[in-house]
Amino acid sequence: MGNNAIVGQSGGPTAVINSSLAGVVKNATDRKIPKIYGMRFGIKGLLERKIINMTDYIVEEIDTELLKRTPASFLGTCRLKLPKVEEDEEIYAKIFKILQELDIGFFFYIGGNDSMDTVMKLSGYGQKINSPIRFMGVPKTIDNDLAITDHTPGYGSAAKYIAATTKELILDANVYDTKAAYIVEVMGRNAGWLAAASALSRGVDCDGPDGIFLPEVEFCEDAFMEKAAQVLKHRSVIMVVSEGVKIADGRYVSQLASDLDIMDAFGHRMLTGASRYLSENLTRRLGIKARAIEFGTIQRAAAHILSRVDMTEAFQVGSAAVTAAWEGRTNQVVVLKRVSNDPYICVTDLVDLSHVANVERKVPVEWITPSKDDVTHDFIRYATPLIQAELTPFMVNGMPRHITVASKDKLRAMTRCTDIAL
Amino acid sequence: MGNNAIVGQSGGPTAVINSSLAGVVKNATDRKIPKIYGMRFGIKGLLERKIINMTDYIVEEIDTELLKRTPASFLGTCRLKLPKVEEDEEIYAKIFKILQELDIGFFFYIGGNDSMDTVMKLSGYGQKINSPIRFMGVPKTIDNDLAITDHTPGYGSAAKYIAATTKELILDANVYDTKAAYIVEVMGRNAGWLAAASALSRGVDCDGPDGIFLPEVEFCEDAFMEKAAQVLKHRSVIMVVSEGVKIADGRYVSQLASDLDIMDAFGHRMLTGASRYLSENLTRRLGIKARAIEFGTIQRAAAHILSRVDMTEAFQVGSAAVTAAWEGRTNQVVVLKRVSNDPYICVTDLVDLSHVANVERKVPVEWITPSKDDVTHDFIRYATPLIQAELTPFMVNGMPRHITVASKDKLRAMTRCTDIAL
Repeated sequence: MGNNAIVGQSGGPTAVINSSLAGVVKNATDRKIPKIYGMRFGIKGLLERKIINMTDYIVEEIDTELLKRTPASFLGTCRLKLPKVEEDEEIYAKIFKILQELDIGFFFYIGGNDSMDTVMKLSGYGQKINSPIRFMGVPKTIDNDLAITDHTPGYGSAAKYIAATTKELILDANVYDTKAAYIVEVMGRNAGWLAAASALSRGVDCDGPDGIFLPEVEFCEDAFMEKAAQVLKHRSVIMVVSEGVKIADGRYVSQLASDLDIMDAFGHRMLTGASRYLSENLTRRLGIKARAIEFGTIQRAAAHILSRVDMTEAFQVGSAAVTAAWEGRTNQVVVLKRVSNDPYICVTDLVDLSHVANVERKVPVEWITPSKDDVTHDFIRYATPLIQAELTPFMVNGMPRHITVASKDKLRAMTRCTDIAL
Repeated sequence: MGNNAIVGQSGGPTAVINSSLAGVVKNATDRKIPKIYGMRFGIKGLLERKIINMTDYIVEEIDTELLKRTPASFLGTCRLKLPKVEEDEEIYAKIFKILQELDIGFFFYIGGNDSMDTVMKLSGYGQKINSPIRFMGVPKTIDNDLAITDHTPGYGSAAKYIAATTKELILDANVYDTKAAYIVEVMGRNAGWLAAASALSRGVDCDGPDGIFLPEVEFCEDAFMEKAAQVLKHRSVIMVVSEGVKIADGRYVSQLASDLDIMDAFGHRMLTGASRYLSENLTRRLGIKARAIEFGTIQRAAAHILSRVDMTEAFQVGSAAVTAAWEGRTNQVVVLKRVSNDPYICVTDLVDLSHVANVERKVPVEWITPSKDDVTHDFIRYATPLIQAELTPFMVNGMPRHITVASKDKLRAMTRCTDIAL
């Protein structure tokens, strides 16, 4: 079998996806795997032979530490979904030819449930052609929607950012003696884990949001307005909604915006978000000043307030994937298994890719209050350990320092020039 | 003259406005001023006799430290602009009656240029009626648009948040092999200090935004689109715009959105922001996916990544105001004076309120590049010292702990119950 390893990142980035990459590279280096390749832009880049040598970039220990603290995908990412083997065998043949040329024995892919589908398909094709390459999936997603695993690396940091920022916004929203409404929109198309995380802002110094609305249960606009009106009798109101909240007939609230006939000059319907729709309607119905706040891509990139538990686990799943492949496993994905909640103890485990690929895990309905506008204490118990502790960025000149392929390339070019000069 | 002190906060909050409040309370306590009152919701609350005793809330040293780390206005704020004395003397008489009842000798007001107008008017009326009360202004604003002072407390922390978040967004924006446009909208209606701060993201590991557009110079949409098109030939583009960018005829870009005839069902024109307008036009003109990102109120509330230099200076100006009033000064405002840039040394100074009230300071035009889409190194030299160093929040259960009037009230009520029970 091949001697070398290759690793890729796929799907949306997280604050700690690079910590998993660091875990893969560290373990593979320790095991003296001769070459550890990185595919730029996932499987899409691999097909275009966009490949780097990880050890050109992660040279000394501080590089590993910087990688852990750098958000977004160091290697770049893609959203390419591989066709079924029956549909296009050629693409598989091409990928395996490249892997063979690189003398690959170990293949690691860090991603969500779509990406696990990619690894599973590659692994399936490998079995078909009797390839000895071992394929391992490494989980990541801020959405926390992977099956089997207790939670996904990336979720804890996004949850911490959302909860901390919501807490700060609640303070900010209450400074005036006048009343206003704030509708915070959080990522999560089908699963409400991220919106639920806003509940973690609650404590002795903060009452938390006045309502939290998840896509797992039907969204009732009248109930939302009624709740807002009740709170507004006394003070400003802060609501948190998943971008994916849906009304009874299954339409996304964000789609309802089109019922307002918001058109641009070309007659195209504008796609406005759920928070914008709700804040506008709130103003109309209650005559109150309402503000829509979208956390946008910041929530998946805010490494400056990452969860250390999350960062550590992200590293562990990357490392565990290498150990598993080294020991002969293939066609599997590393998952997290909570052994104990208090004290929080979590270990890695392995399951077949087929159990995770393409499966979406939602917030259990029993963790949502009967009023459908909040989460229960079971959720708090589940999520609190995941946002514990911090990892300070390396601050240089007042800014968090990151590691990037481009900056390392520049540095390497400079060093080579110096070598020649000497 | 009166024995006691009163302090208020006014205008938009910042991440460190409470550090100035802590500075006032600490110095006044050290000088054994018998009562240190806080007005809830600024001068508006004072008129309604909404007054608390600061030493009921800031009891021990950890309370001071928590106050320094708590964003938004601890006391609450207002935007009330006092009428001229000639227009409504009654309101002044009422305020001074309340101040007399409270036996006030020292009056401190923490705010921006509008708030300094309030202090100046009160001080003027005080002189008129021969009141011995000493009035001192304490500067704050994330906008950095106060005259005379080298910079304003609150700016450094907002600048640090904007630069760090922009840096993270740039990483996030470049993970895909496909090209997209990101338009980041930053606060600043007339002064571009905050948008300019995004340039601080530049370093060996980050090229920074591709364009930075300030309200100080005319905004040319064609030049903006041309620049974006140039960058998009190679990679994704990230532009930062002040919310207050204006075109040649003086209209805000955000107003142009109405030219798109974006109407709701009631026929009202929607007020969309500059970034939304530009991202939509960018999509239309270049056929590229564009995303508008508004930092919104988070940029003034993100104490979780405050600048320690800023926090320290905010404390210092609060404290210096007490010293000055104690020594007999009145009708003045504390300002910051940069003694040296490298090493950075900054001291407090005092100027008459009339020099600061109602005056707006903008980014010097010579600090903006001739192409009107970036700032020069002079700005970087000026702003870099202001974002240095951090102050870690007190993290409790994974969340930053804050101090609030409500939570302290609850605690005090509990303690009183216990007293009785004992």
